[in-house]
Amino acid sequence: MSLNNKQWLLISHTTGEPTSEHFKLVERELPDLQDGEVLVRHHYLSLDPYMRGRMTDAKNYATLQPLNEVMIGGTVGEVAASKNPAFAVGDPVVGMGGWQLYQRVTVAELGGLRKVDTSCVPLSAYLGSVGMPGVTAWYGVNRIIEPKAGQTVVVSAASGAVGGTVGQLAKVRGARAVGLAGGPDKCRYVTQELGFDACIDYKQHQDLESLSQALREACPDGIDGHFENVGGMILDAVLLHSNSFARVALCGMISRYGQPIPITQTQHILMNRMRLEAFVISEHMEVWPDALKELGTLVAAGKLKYRETVSQGLESAPEALSDLFKGKNFGKQLVKLV
Amino acid sequence: MSLNNKQWLLISHTTGEPTSEHFKLVERELPDLQDGEVLVRHHYLSLDPYMRGRMTDAKNYATLQPLNEVMIGGTVGEVAASKNPAFAVGDPVVGMGGWQLYQRVTVAELGGLRKVDTSCVPLSAYLGSVGMPGVTAWYGVNRIIEPKAGQTVVVSAASGAVGGTVGQLAKVRGARAVGLAGGPDKCRYVTQELGFDACIDYKQHQDLESLSQALREACPDGIDGHFENVGGMILDAVLLHSNSFARVALCGMISRYGQPIPITQTQHILMNRMRLEAFVISEHMEVWPDALKELGTLVAAGKLKYRETVSQGLESAPEALSDLFKGKNFGKQLVKLV
Repeated sequence: MSLNNKQWLLISHTTGEPTSEHFKLVERELPDLQDGEVLVRHHYLSLDPYMRGRMTDAKNYATLQPLNEVMIGGTVGEVAASKNPAFAVGDPVVGMGGWQLYQRVTVAELGGLRKVDTSCVPLSAYLGSVGMPGVTAWYGVNRIIEPKAGQTVVVSAASGAVGGTVGQLAKVRGARAVGLAGGPDKCRYVTQELGFDACIDYKQHQDLESLSQALREACPDGIDGHFENVGGMILDAVLLHSNSFARVALCGMISRYGQPIPITQTQHILMNRMRLEAFVISEHMEVWPDALKELGTLVAAGKLKYRETVSQGLESAPEALSDLFKGKNFGKQLVKLV
Repeated sequence: MSLNNKQWLLISHTTGEPTSEHFKLVERELPDLQDGEVLVRHHYLSLDPYMRGRMTDAKNYATLQPLNEVMIGGTVGEVAASKNPAFAVGDPVVGMGGWQLYQRVTVAELGGLRKVDTSCVPLSAYLGSVGMPGVTAWYGVNRIIEPKAGQTVVVSAASGAVGGTVGQLAKVRGARAVGLAGGPDKCRYVTQELGFDACIDYKQHQDLESLSQALREACPDGIDGHFENVGGMILDAVLLHSNSFARVALCGMISRYGQPIPITQTQHILMNRMRLEAFVISEHMEVWPDALKELGTLVAAGKLKYRETVSQGLESAPEALSDLFKGKNFGKQLVKLV
């Protein structure tokens, strides 16, 4: 067979907002498979906030994406051809296939390809609640916040793939979940569909005093744990209402790479003997098996809900990424490739 | 015997600077000892930053000091009389005897009285390097920062009882120690007497850029651990030069109780996947035995140095406390009572 592949290459780095100008779409013929190799046809590409870190040459923890190569990205799909006995045509798989229709997985890259069970969990969920965003939430809740029954856990960007999972995992552990999200639709979704106890529309609160008052009302017993996806004023408001020994998982705050993110209420960190811990989930691979097992079980049982924003066709990927950073997505941002 | 005791009572709370107006000196006859009781004659009273927290009714972690009672304080002294077989006249002891010449230790209070060995460690050291400040430093270094050989540890208020011990313990563990202190005399003491690798005179740096540049020069390999006694701009400068996975022990920042302490560079906490942990040493009694053993051994061996500022006579205590908050002390602030 002779298949044509389409790929988005990154052609320039940026410290600002990613736009379609930083990418170039190319069409290439797929080479024949060598022994041991697998060809995957992608069904979905995942778009995630970390991609901005890969595109910027400002100091950050991420490896810089090389120019004129296929843009990095998580993918799910089906095996389209195989010269490897461990993979059969039709097998559903998850990997880091990048922004392209097909991935030819070389022998060296096989470690990144994993077969998944789609009998009870939809394929796309392996990019969301049962994938990197889900494990990110799981780590923050179970390794940093460690909520006890009856405690209050707050999470920003609560309608997102990570935030939505944080609150639901906190509820599973018997805690009270309070979200922050932008706009009444997202807040309604967070409480009515995801089952949070409360959700604050941060767009209604332009200053610390107003946001702090809303948080006080939503958290009458104070805050014991917080999962921070944004940083800045939200973190300040949380510090003002934290209880003694409150824990803060820091993940995110990356929307303004390289720019200062001020907070003003650091005295409460000491007064409440708090712990703040930042993490990047790719540096904690040891938790993935346990986390994926619990997340998959919860999704299969209908106890972990999520929403997806699906952009149609590979061509739409750069604009969809740009929309992600503008907060236009609602839940997990995907690109459908089939 | 009929002994007269002198005591400082706290007569008003404050959210500002403690002054002598908040205290009242009284003279009282000591009652006779009951069975099981001990009378301690105080040699030294310890003055510490935490006392401000006890005097303020603004929200903080400290128990409020009741009015018209003897002001709280750590003390060392000798048993002057005893109706308890566990204590003999002349025994050197450490306790929380408060701002008074003598403490009549009731049976209920005996748990707070501890006999100490003054054969190799001076009595006053049990209020400093081998007491609460020393254990505070020990906890931050060994339970939060956990420096590895060759790493760089920074500490603010480096000439103080806590800060000076932090740097020396970091050196014992093979790390590089960099201090911040106010003025050339204190900086010289920190490097020449305490053996730090470098010390920055923060009074020479009025803005973040200048302080950051000084820190960059003093820490060419970046910062792996930081012990924060001050907060604010120093913490910001540290964040700017922290390495990946740097740890920050927060202890202090209490010089401005209840007032906002802003920082601007929180994005580095995430970018460097840092951990910030605040603590109060009285909530970690489990480490005291191990910590005191190591600190006592180091002091006895001459490997843990310290300096004391000694104010003469009980009458001088309120002014000496006020001076402590103005940074006039050099090393551990004591009041000599004999």
